[in-house]
Amino acid sequence: MTIKVGVLGAQGRVGSSVVDGVNAADDLELVAALDRGDDLQALVDNGAEVIVDFTTPGVVMDNLEFCIANGIHCVVGTTGFDEERLGRVRQWLEDNPGTGVLVAPNFAISAVLAMSFARQAARFFDSAEVVEYHHPNKLDAPSGTAIHTAQGIADARREAGLSAMPDATEQQLEGSRGADVDGVKVHAVRMTGMVAHEDVIFGAQGQSLTIRQDSYDRTSFVPGVLVGVRDVAEHPGLTVGLDGYLGI
Amino acid sequence: MTIKVGVLGAQGRVGSSVVDGVNAADDLELVAALDRGDDLQALVDNGAEVIVDFTTPGVVMDNLEFCIANGIHCVVGTTGFDEERLGRVRQWLEDNPGTGVLVAPNFAISAVLAMSFARQAARFFDSAEVVEYHHPNKLDAPSGTAIHTAQGIADARREAGLSAMPDATEQQLEGSRGADVDGVKVHAVRMTGMVAHEDVIFGAQGQSLTIRQDSYDRTSFVPGVLVGVRDVAEHPGLTVGLDGYLGI
Amino acid sequence: MTIKVGVLGAQGRVGSSVVDGVNAADDLELVAALDRGDDLQALVDNGAEVIVDFTTPGVVMDNLEFCIANGIHCVVGTTGFDEERLGRVRQWLEDNPGTGVLVAPNFAISAVLAMSFARQAARFFDSAEVVEYHHPNKLDAPSGTAIHTAQGIADARREAGLSAMPDATEQQLEGSRGADVDGVKVHAVRMTGMVAHEDVIFGAQGQSLTIRQDSYDRTSFVPGVLVGVRDVAEHPGLTVGLDGYLGI
Amino acid sequence: MTIKVGVLGAQGRVGSSVVDGVNAADDLELVAALDRGDDLQALVDNGAEVIVDFTTPGVVMDNLEFCIANGIHCVVGTTGFDEERLGRVRQWLEDNPGTGVLVAPNFAISAVLAMSFARQAARFFDSAEVVEYHHPNKLDAPSGTAIHTAQGIADARREAGLSAMPDATEQQLEGSRGADVDGVKVHAVRMTGMVAHEDVIFGAQGQSLTIRQDSYDRTSFVPGVLVGVRDVAEHPGLTVGLDGYLGI
Repeated sequence: MTIKVGVLGAQGRVGSSVVDGVNAADDLELVAALDRGDDLQALVDNGAEVIVDFTTPGVVMDNLEFCIANGIHCVVGTTGFDEERLGRVRQWLEDNPGTGVLVAPNFAISAVLAMSFARQAARFFDSAEVVEYHHPNKLDAPSGTAIHTAQGIADARREAGLSAMPDATEQQLEGSRGADVDGVKVHAVRMTGMVAHEDVIFGAQGQSLTIRQDSYDRTSFVPGVLVGVRDVAEHPGLTVGLDGYLGI
Repeated sequence: MTIKVGVLGAQGRVGSSVVDGVNAADDLELVAALDRGDDLQALVDNGAEVIVDFTTPGVVMDNLEFCIANGIHCVVGTTGFDEERLGRVRQWLEDNPGTGVLVAPNFAISAVLAMSFARQAARFFDSAEVVEYHHPNKLDAPSGTAIHTAQGIADARREAGLSAMPDATEQQLEGSRGADVDGVKVHAVRMTGMVAHEDVIFGAQGQSLTIRQDSYDRTSFVPGVLVGVRDVAEHPGLTVGLDGYLGI
Repeated sequence: MTIKVGVLGAQGRVGSSVVDGVNAADDLELVAALDRGDDLQALVDNGAEVIVDFTTPGVVMDNLEFCIANGIHCVVGTTGFDEERLGRVRQWLEDNPGTGVLVAPNFAISAVLAMSFARQAARFFDSAEVVEYHHPNKLDAPSGTAIHTAQGIADARREAGLSAMPDATEQQLEGSRGADVDGVKVHAVRMTGMVAHEDVIFGAQGQSLTIRQDSYDRTSFVPGVLVGVRDVAEHPGLTVGLDGYLGI
Repeated sequence: MTIKVGVLGAQGRVGSSVVDGVNAADDLELVAALDRGDDLQALVDNGAEVIVDFTTPGVVMDNLEFCIANGIHCVVGTTGFDEERLGRVRQWLEDNPGTGVLVAPNFAISAVLAMSFARQAARFFDSAEVVEYHHPNKLDAPSGTAIHTAQGIADARREAGLSAMPDATEQQLEGSRGADVDGVKVHAVRMTGMVAHEDVIFGAQGQSLTIRQDSYDRTSFVPGVLVGVRDVAEHPGLTVGLDGYLGI
């Protein structure tokens, strides 16, 4: 049994990689690849069970309203979702409670897992720091992922009642100890040739644990999208964030 | 409120590190440090709430019988537990159902977490391999931890219905692709200067996730023992393996 | 002062990346981009001082004969050079002793440096092993680079009179200790998402040294080609291998 | 043929590790292990060819004057050498030009090699940064080794005429991009369980090269001392720094 998939935004850079990913998967069947101006009715006519939406904030809400009304599950990577938009999605879902919608800002499954593992590990270690590595064209430092990871660690430490990390530094060159994100040090390396990489490092007596995430190219979101496509039917209602699907 | 702790085998190499660890922890109080020939009654007299046992297979069962009968929780790293022994512990616990006993073969918390994360991550990746690194005096290759990790990955892949990993190798030098542990390749490096280290590597389109565990010295079991001491009261009955305490 | 560069094979996948690299460099000027059927005279007419040849074994020799006769330095990545071909190049150079020709099988400068550093370091360490990581479509294991690196280590150890590496392994799963390349263990990992990566690991009492090389995409040869272009005029005669230009 | 070795400061923490290292080496013979108050004449009487000095600034000069006068080569790790002291050593050596003296601040051979490789590699890469990792009791950040490594990179880049590294960062959390050491970014991680570790990372188009140095315990200076002992006879006169012996 294959799952019948429609892709919206199929001619965009991201959408076309999703099309390739669906075509390459034995258990998925591409039944519609739509873009700007195409009629959504094709989804129904071709029996799409799940759609993937990488379109634009201007059209995504219409897409979701149509799909939910037709009982088609939705996996959404389009940006621009605030509480108001999520509220409208929830409302549409009230009439179709069996339909699942996944809205996720980040489909890079290794990055999502790294953040989850970091939160799980945090309370067992005295020390935790984050080092991220990106290409030198990146405008912000540290990366949003690294900041988010550090905040997850800080939250987990607080919940576990841990005190501040040990650090005897008395004399330092400014900046050497990194940025402070809620008590967790974060370091940003900029390096020609690199893409996007992150080390989350934990230390305790006599040992360390490092969670390393490497993104080598811009299609690294595809496996996470396919996890969404395969699992969305088992998660009726609205789910925000891919981690809700990881069962961890 | 501190927890009152007794250590059995307190003069052994491992036990004395546990004594140091308890003494260094603000929330724990060492009330008895016993070794061969000492009277267990001192545990009761000094109000021990939890004992840590790193003794020998010859005496550990007597220690557990005494402690369970007196409602003292037990954290046990002594080796030699088979099903028969675990059965006897369960029987003693029937009369003291509020008492907790943790029997764990491995207290290195970073290694236990690494195995847990590996099992969680396995089903989301096409590829998974394990590389372990140890000092050259080690007699077996790969390490028991690496084999155990690989089997956990293999189990998780099977449960998720994953097919074999991609590998187009046609021509190879014998041994280059590692040992096959239930379909997961495991590589063992032996290196003067190193202690015990492990990389669990997962790959999917455009990305990889690496869980790296480093043990730098022989006291790396201490933090895991202290997790056991702090949490054993909340886990009445018998628990085998520290992962049962990690809430993950 | 810029260097005037001609590219032969300019429309091929590799050649076009060289064209991009030359165009992006402030100190280089692209004066000719030729491919199959173009007249080599354009090199002379446009004042090319250096050519880069990524063509085919069928045409490269004619290209070199022409360029050497016209005093144009040559940086050559085209394959198929055996002793006979190198001999003919040397002969042509006898009449133009001021002209430089660099023929290199590998222009990935990080890989060339890694091999050089491995040879330099080898005699100072008790242990040395190589772990290489590639995408799973690779047909051979280990990679040619890893084998070459291991042989360089083995040679350096032999010259220094080192004895065999310490390894107490008595009991092993077949393949876990890797392939034996002249006494140096080499391990090959195959991982979806990865490109081409190598760890050369050295160990001595209380320490290790790891030389890690990562290739993230298929243009990683460009920087090495540009080193060749910039330095070839200072290396008259024939040089085989980019390491001859690294001054190390 | 073994080399006859005397150790001065043989009962100190460092000196006793040197004694162990000499005893464990097949090609070295310990003929004198002296400490405070012992008569240096024992070195001559027992035929010492090389001495290793890990004593104190207060006695090392007398030791060297005696050894040089007796034609005994010297490997010196004692601190406190300034230009004035080095000048006196050179003067003593004028009368014994065949005698070798090595004075080195750092005998950790992997660290010395890492710095040398960093200087060699620097001119071939657009980007270079240093990340060092130490236990949290360290008082200064970054480590002296990391600063020294960064300065070596900066010098090599300047000599090669390289321009500033690419870095498009516009918006940053303070400290995230590390400390600036002569244009090279240096990051310092403090982590319970770790000892002393350093990553020197270089990036160019499509690739990176990382030189990783790990010190696992406090005896990591021993292999470098033994390199000194074995090679000092071939380096008559004064050599400052172990890198002068590495032939690189």
